[in-house]
Amino acid sequence: MDRIIVFDVNETLLDVGALDPLFERMFGDAGVRREWFGQMLQSAFVSTIVDSYRDFGTLAMGALAMVAERHGVTVADEDRQALGAGMRSLPPHPEVREAMDRLRDAGFRLSTLTNSTPEVAEAQLANAGLRDLVVHVLSADTVRRLKPAPEPYRMAAERHEVSIGAIRLVAAHAWDIAGALRAGSAAAFVARPGQVLDRAGAQPDIVGANLDDVAKQIVAADR
Amino acid sequence: MDRIIVFDVNETLLDVGALDPLFERMFGDAGVRREWFGQMLQSAFVSTIVDSYRDFGTLAMGALAMVAERHGVTVADEDRQALGAGMRSLPPHPEVREAMDRLRDAGFRLSTLTNSTPEVAEAQLANAGLRDLVVHVLSADTVRRLKPAPEPYRMAAERHEVSIGAIRLVAAHAWDIAGALRAGSAAAFVARPGQVLDRAGAQPDIVGANLDDVAKQIVAADR
Repeated sequence: MDRIIVFDVNETLLDVGALDPLFERMFGDAGVRREWFGQMLQSAFVSTIVDSYRDFGTLAMGALAMVAERHGVTVADEDRQALGAGMRSLPPHPEVREAMDRLRDAGFRLSTLTNSTPEVAEAQLANAGLRDLVVHVLSADTVRRLKPAPEPYRMAAERHEVSIGAIRLVAAHAWDIAGALRAGSAAAFVARPGQVLDRAGAQPDIVGANLDDVAKQIVAADR
Repeated sequence: MDRIIVFDVNETLLDVGALDPLFERMFGDAGVRREWFGQMLQSAFVSTIVDSYRDFGTLAMGALAMVAERHGVTVADEDRQALGAGMRSLPPHPEVREAMDRLRDAGFRLSTLTNSTPEVAEAQLANAGLRDLVVHVLSADTVRRLKPAPEPYRMAAERHEVSIGAIRLVAAHAWDIAGALRAGSAAAFVARPGQVLDRAGAQPDIVGANLDDVAKQIVAADR
């Protein structure tokens, strides 16, 4: 089966670590970037569970305010704006372009599916020089339910006019893998440093240390 | 209105920091205890969103395995057992007994509502010397939906044979406050060190630095 390959964006394709100097400037500690990203995810999951939708940009700024209060830090307006701008212009991880080229050259159709808003997602792909490689730049915001809820994965299948089983979601996050598998699609996990699967749930059939490793396995499995 | 006061347990009444020496022993870094607790919450939220229930004890051990893999550490069986035993015998924060006494003496009915399983929750309350103060030791496990989903808060109201608006949930977690308010109950936030509210959502009408501060405000507001 020629699957549709759907990539998560933040941390999977793009290096959120590029924001470290900004967090060093704001908090005197680049490590707060991970705390902020974790808080943003927690706020996103809670908003899904209590069925009170907020877009990812709003969640990102809310998480920044929570982390700032926790650390007793006042965030300047210009730093808040720098975070928004930084999220739009994250660099791709070094192997990403080559890995996506490999998949496209092998005949796969590629798209992205992110919790970022459509406007941010388009800016992210364009600024990372990856926009030409993908058919659709999809956002969970369109269905107002964030991953790992099933609706975004179903939307990706609908937009490609295929069944959900024809989708393979590629992500560096255990929670995204869990959502995709539960929705009925295949999945591939990019085991970036610090990222681990949840061994208690359903497991993806493809796991690789980086996107090129994963791409080679997809070519072998899905062609 | 004489409200029913329903307390969250872990971190709100009981000091999870008592597990720090165990995490120091397992990881050489007591700070990993917070990472573990955060991973446990994330796994709990994901299991709720993808509608694949796992009990809190299973989630706790799964989170330990994920954190261990992330840090390249092998956890000994005896340490895993020590974590389970430790969760059952957490000490109360120092002001908790007096604060709960104050509320009971003022005529309130008190209960607890936790994501821990019923068996663990009963052990926690008994070992902390608080069991005599509460009418019901309630567990989200009974309805197989973890907080902040609405079902556990609704169950608390049903068990007390009151409407959900007669419940006041007391918790040290923004996500628990969000769930309680969304379900229709009142809430009070215990702003323990490192705990902050999400200012973007609905806000509780009572916030205090510790449980005694919160108890005094509840007596003033709800009697």
